[in-house]
Amino acid sequence: MTAPRMPGKITVRDVAMRDGVQNLKRILPTDLKVELIEGMADAGIQRIEATSFMNPKAVPNTADADEVMRRIRRKPGVRYEALVANLRGAKRAIEAGCDGVQQVISLTDVHNRANVNRSVKQSLEEMKQIAGVVRGAGILFCGAISLATGCPYTGRVPEESVYDLAGKYVDLGVDEIFLCDSMGMGDPARMGRMVGDIRRRWPETSLVVHIHNTRGMGLANAFASMQAGAATLDASLGGLGGCPFAPGASGNVSTEDLVHMLWLMEIETGVDLDALRVLAGKLAEALDTPLFSAVHQAGKSFEKSPVPARLLVGEDERTIQDVDGLAERV
Amino acid sequence: MTAPRMPGKITVRDVAMRDGVQNLKRILPTDLKVELIEGMADAGIQRIEATSFMNPKAVPNTADADEVMRRIRRKPGVRYEALVANLRGAKRAIEAGCDGVQQVISLTDVHNRANVNRSVKQSLEEMKQIAGVVRGAGILFCGAISLATGCPYTGRVPEESVYDLAGKYVDLGVDEIFLCDSMGMGDPARMGRMVGDIRRRWPETSLVVHIHNTRGMGLANAFASMQAGAATLDASLGGLGGCPFAPGASGNVSTEDLVHMLWLMEIETGVDLDALRVLAGKLAEALDTPLFSAVHQAGKSFEKSPVPARLLVGEDERTIQDVDGLAERV
Repeated sequence: MTAPRMPGKITVRDVAMRDGVQNLKRILPTDLKVELIEGMADAGIQRIEATSFMNPKAVPNTADADEVMRRIRRKPGVRYEALVANLRGAKRAIEAGCDGVQQVISLTDVHNRANVNRSVKQSLEEMKQIAGVVRGAGILFCGAISLATGCPYTGRVPEESVYDLAGKYVDLGVDEIFLCDSMGMGDPARMGRMVGDIRRRWPETSLVVHIHNTRGMGLANAFASMQAGAATLDASLGGLGGCPFAPGASGNVSTEDLVHMLWLMEIETGVDLDALRVLAGKLAEALDTPLFSAVHQAGKSFEKSPVPARLLVGEDERTIQDVDGLAERV
Repeated sequence: MTAPRMPGKITVRDVAMRDGVQNLKRILPTDLKVELIEGMADAGIQRIEATSFMNPKAVPNTADADEVMRRIRRKPGVRYEALVANLRGAKRAIEAGCDGVQQVISLTDVHNRANVNRSVKQSLEEMKQIAGVVRGAGILFCGAISLATGCPYTGRVPEESVYDLAGKYVDLGVDEIFLCDSMGMGDPARMGRMVGDIRRRWPETSLVVHIHNTRGMGLANAFASMQAGAATLDASLGGLGGCPFAPGASGNVSTEDLVHMLWLMEIETGVDLDALRVLAGKLAEALDTPLFSAVHQAGKSFEKSPVPARLLVGEDERTIQDVDGLAERV
């Protein structure tokens, strides 16, 4: 086993306006989506999954996909991407000016039918056409492996099946593989192992790790993935993105929690955490529910609270000491 | 840098009935404490911080410490431990039949005053007497380093001050050092580094890592600590243990979330996760609030949901496929 190689710089890709909203009962206003996407770009997020081009009946919350893409002010250097499930969606995404298109396929037929109304085989056949159209448009084409750890209907998914699908994606010419722990079922040992295996097998293909925090392992999985060399991680503003199979459970790992951890670890992200927190606050206000974001609740590490008056003792005794001096004092 | 050495077996030490309850506004009934402690022992938890022997005015929720210790049915092989802040508490803990006593000192004077009403220097002087009394009684004596990453009043705490205090503990003859990320401010890189450093400097002294999930990094910190060789981790049933400085924020890492992650990683704990979940349910009912436990909310990984009727297509087409066969099918 080789030593971990933690990347010095991580790209945080935000998916709140796609994965975050897709299971929301409340329709998020287009104005707010545009404001948040622009705000995230201004805060330094360089890749934003801005929407999805799906059947509006299936995903009402991204029925405004074309409008969102048309209205957002584009910041140079930022990629505005979208998820699609079929050729029609891919064509709409290209037409709308997306910088990248991600097609998602689940590892089990039953979930792929639930998600995109196709068998895995049908989705892969359609991928050939989608890849041609998207790459023909000169934009990024990505293949997402959904349920890379487990399926809500069939349970545990073998790691080898993940590599089978990844290999098919590479054969079909994807620019990037998304490894998605869509249900938050993965543990950090497995996530690290899968990231390492995929990078060794397909070193020329870029990799994004898409993490959910459903079972509290979101940041552990982010950490293990980075140790195995992952340099781009998906996250969602405010932790938006509940899973319909687990009411009350958190969804995507929160972007501000991830950026906060990376800040503590002195890993460069280029993201302004305080600006993100303001945006998360706007989201919380619009949703009128608490966010699945620990930093939104607790604040950043090392933020100082006022010292209670009862602890302010006599002048001859300093109460807030320079902790560096502990060794000398005791 | 050497490769991670993940222990094959982890001891999970539960602190819900001490750290978990100490900031609760509601007084948890003694009956329930006894039931939960006995239930955790039956579920396979081998070390339980059952209470604290503090001034009942300062910590009303452990005013029943003597009664709890007297009433619990002791399971052979399980250690029932307690936290103390001073000599009087240590004597009470010994009298009550505790198997181990943990004295806590914060790394900053202001927080040590807030927590135990003494300067760090005073606490260390008292530790000499406490160590003598506790070790004289033939039970485990532990020194806990509180605020090992940061202080709510003074901010970031240097790593070197952690080692200063650890060294003093070792000089005073502690059996075990507790490394406590008391405010959940630590990141996994730092936690792993500190665990590794302490183990290298004092290889003969046992180490417990005490983790909070205040900023979502609980399981990441557990993972990194284990990679660095930590073999005993503190956690709290139901994630009980909010921080008074961060209303709404989660406190200790949840025991069932930690045991769940270890189960996925195939690391032995000897703990029955389903039994723990039943106990967490009792706690949630008694508190009448949601728990800070992801697994309590979302269920275990790989639990299967029923397949929606619309996905049950014709007999000629299997909807739930054997995912192992994916490679052949597509």
